[in-house]
Amino acid sequence: MLLLRRRIPLLAALLRSASASASSLLPNPKNVPYREGFLWSSCYFHGTGHHTSREGVPIDKELLDPLALIKDEVSEISNRMRSMVIAEIPELTLAAGYFFRAGVEGKRTCPTVLLLMASAISMDIANPSFGSQNELRERYMRVAEITELIHVSSLIHDDVLDDAKTRRGMDSLNCVMGKKLAVLAGDFLLFKAFSTAAVSLDNTEVVSLLAKAFSNLVTGEFMQMTITPAQRCSMDYYLQKTYYKTAALISNSCKAVAVLAGQTVEVATLAYQYGRHLGIAYQLIDDILDFTGTSASLGKGSLSDIHQGIVTAPILFAMEEYPQLHEIVEQGFDDPSNVDAALEYLARSKGIERTRLLAAEHAKLAADAIDGLPESNDEYVLISRQALKDLTQKLIKRTK
Amino acid sequence: MLLLRRRIPLLAALLRSASASASSLLPNPKNVPYREGFLWSSCYFHGTGHHTSREGVPIDKELLDPLALIKDEVSEISNRMRSMVIAEIPELTLAAGYFFRAGVEGKRTCPTVLLLMASAISMDIANPSFGSQNELRERYMRVAEITELIHVSSLIHDDVLDDAKTRRGMDSLNCVMGKKLAVLAGDFLLFKAFSTAAVSLDNTEVVSLLAKAFSNLVTGEFMQMTITPAQRCSMDYYLQKTYYKTAALISNSCKAVAVLAGQTVEVATLAYQYGRHLGIAYQLIDDILDFTGTSASLGKGSLSDIHQGIVTAPILFAMEEYPQLHEIVEQGFDDPSNVDAALEYLARSKGIERTRLLAAEHAKLAADAIDGLPESNDEYVLISRQALKDLTQKLIKRTK
Repeated sequence: MLLLRRRIPLLAALLRSASASASSLLPNPKNVPYREGFLWSSCYFHGTGHHTSREGVPIDKELLDPLALIKDEVSEISNRMRSMVIAEIPELTLAAGYFFRAGVEGKRTCPTVLLLMASAISMDIANPSFGSQNELRERYMRVAEITELIHVSSLIHDDVLDDAKTRRGMDSLNCVMGKKLAVLAGDFLLFKAFSTAAVSLDNTEVVSLLAKAFSNLVTGEFMQMTITPAQRCSMDYYLQKTYYKTAALISNSCKAVAVLAGQTVEVATLAYQYGRHLGIAYQLIDDILDFTGTSASLGKGSLSDIHQGIVTAPILFAMEEYPQLHEIVEQGFDDPSNVDAALEYLARSKGIERTRLLAAEHAKLAADAIDGLPESNDEYVLISRQALKDLTQKLIKRTK
Repeated sequence: MLLLRRRIPLLAALLRSASASASSLLPNPKNVPYREGFLWSSCYFHGTGHHTSREGVPIDKELLDPLALIKDEVSEISNRMRSMVIAEIPELTLAAGYFFRAGVEGKRTCPTVLLLMASAISMDIANPSFGSQNELRERYMRVAEITELIHVSSLIHDDVLDDAKTRRGMDSLNCVMGKKLAVLAGDFLLFKAFSTAAVSLDNTEVVSLLAKAFSNLVTGEFMQMTITPAQRCSMDYYLQKTYYKTAALISNSCKAVAVLAGQTVEVATLAYQYGRHLGIAYQLIDDILDFTGTSASLGKGSLSDIHQGIVTAPILFAMEEYPQLHEIVEQGFDDPSNVDAALEYLARSKGIERTRLLAAEHAKLAADAIDGLPESNDEYVLISRQALKDLTQKLIKRTK
């Protein structure tokens, strides 16, 4: 019911669209139930080249943005999550729902990527497990919700571990409610994630993928906290940790969507690769922004990583050019003069530039994974794939 | 294979037993696979009145203790858990396995209760889901493992929250490895619990029960941490919190065993009630021991509850006799003179005595739940039921 209600305005917009061909306006006669759930994206089929309505009036710009078109589903996910975190104890509801309040849900990149991926891999495949595509779409939304719950739970626990004061431009939960309640709120979100997974997905492989992603998050944090001086100087160690901490969740969730769809191993692997490279590219840009901030000038960022003794790609690349930096990195950054010296070497090096190139390389590998998907002539599939590829560019060009 | 290997010495002991009737030595001809997994307990069928072997030689005393007979399974659970917590990062393995090392696994009451409950409710029921009783027994063991994982995870997080220095007579994990790694180790155990539940049990209702138990643990801790002065004086609030913190896990796990067995709602409810009352009785005795220690004299315990501002049943009963205590409890126990005054009122009151009576009442209700199970003439069922009832007495008579 919700799905139908959600799509009525989108369908109306679709019917207004002059650029849409007659065939795209009609359900696929061979497979009506299959298309039913996806009408919302059919208006994209001409890409960005036909932005006028039937009457020659420009179409509402929102409708040309694939991300805008899934916003209703993403909003529904946000609403559902707000009701999911309601607990018996009002204080627990308050703590668990802290990052799900309207307006502070963050960029909601995970649900966006997962819903686009679900559309991008939709092909005429027989799925014996599920009755309708609408039901399958609901399951994708559950994967997105579980992923967000795990993500936010890990943010809350990370903030406790790091004694972080802010998150998403506001006070961290540990600052507002104390470390103890923050630990419990994170636990509660994990319970919600796993119970939703077990009850709503009923697919052992998918639940295992999500559990593995969570295990990787914990492992990544552990790698960070138990790092030795030698490991701190290793690019391999850094990339492995980055994968675990930032890319494992989205990559395994992307794969989970493909598995739920009953896709082939090849498609599931490509979905995984997209998430993996997107996540790593995202983190590499984050590492740069920690040094540059929005200004793109070195030293204008918060420098929070280096002040916490966390060594990231820019410094590791600088170290390749200036082996003298090795000793400083091994010593750590408790001594502020080590921070100054490292920043000086970094400024002289191509560390930032090379990190950006590496991020671009991962963004390209993510886009390649999308290009590697089986051919499709379906417009909604193609436009979703394009949106996923655009997202890789958007993420690496971001300045905040 | 493991199940068979495990039972060979027990079977040998059984064959030595003079007191075992011929019928009990043979598999039930009507239902061979059904009995196969439970031969290990058939030697108990005469209770404790026939403790001589076929040759008139006393049987090894160990074999007359029902708890001793499931010790092989409990040991297997311990071994499995040690291998389950092996992580990619050695430090994580060390942290997650801290309480699973040989010799420091604690009393392992949860696995013991669950395996006895599994035997106690075994009846000639058709279970369409599972091929063999051995497979079902393996699933009970998974429930026991998951319960232990959730239990230990909550202990680790509780110790972080309470800044506890010791646990099971040794340094707490947060003392040994720091709070941060302890939080992550707890998270890792939760991941193991939920992924085992999802992958090995494949039963939505059972997974939901275990997830609910975990949610209750978090809720109970939250109730403790956000308690108001008025709530601190309420016996109802105390009992609700006690249920969540101590009894919800074992009661829901007992129910999970019954659900896995394909039992009726009535039997599942009785299993749940047994766990619920056993857990509450256990905690009430724990509350007494915090005041008396092993000596049974007031003030000889660690008094850790009251020093942490936690008000338990003995004080709440004393407050009924001495309303003056109400104001002190509302004020809390930051002021040491309030602790002294409360102890004085407690000494004059029947608080300890009434708490013991309440514990005995819950122990009786637990035993009543066992007596309420459908009649059975099966010796291994009867002896398991007796063991569960004996356990209620053992728990309330304990002095440590």
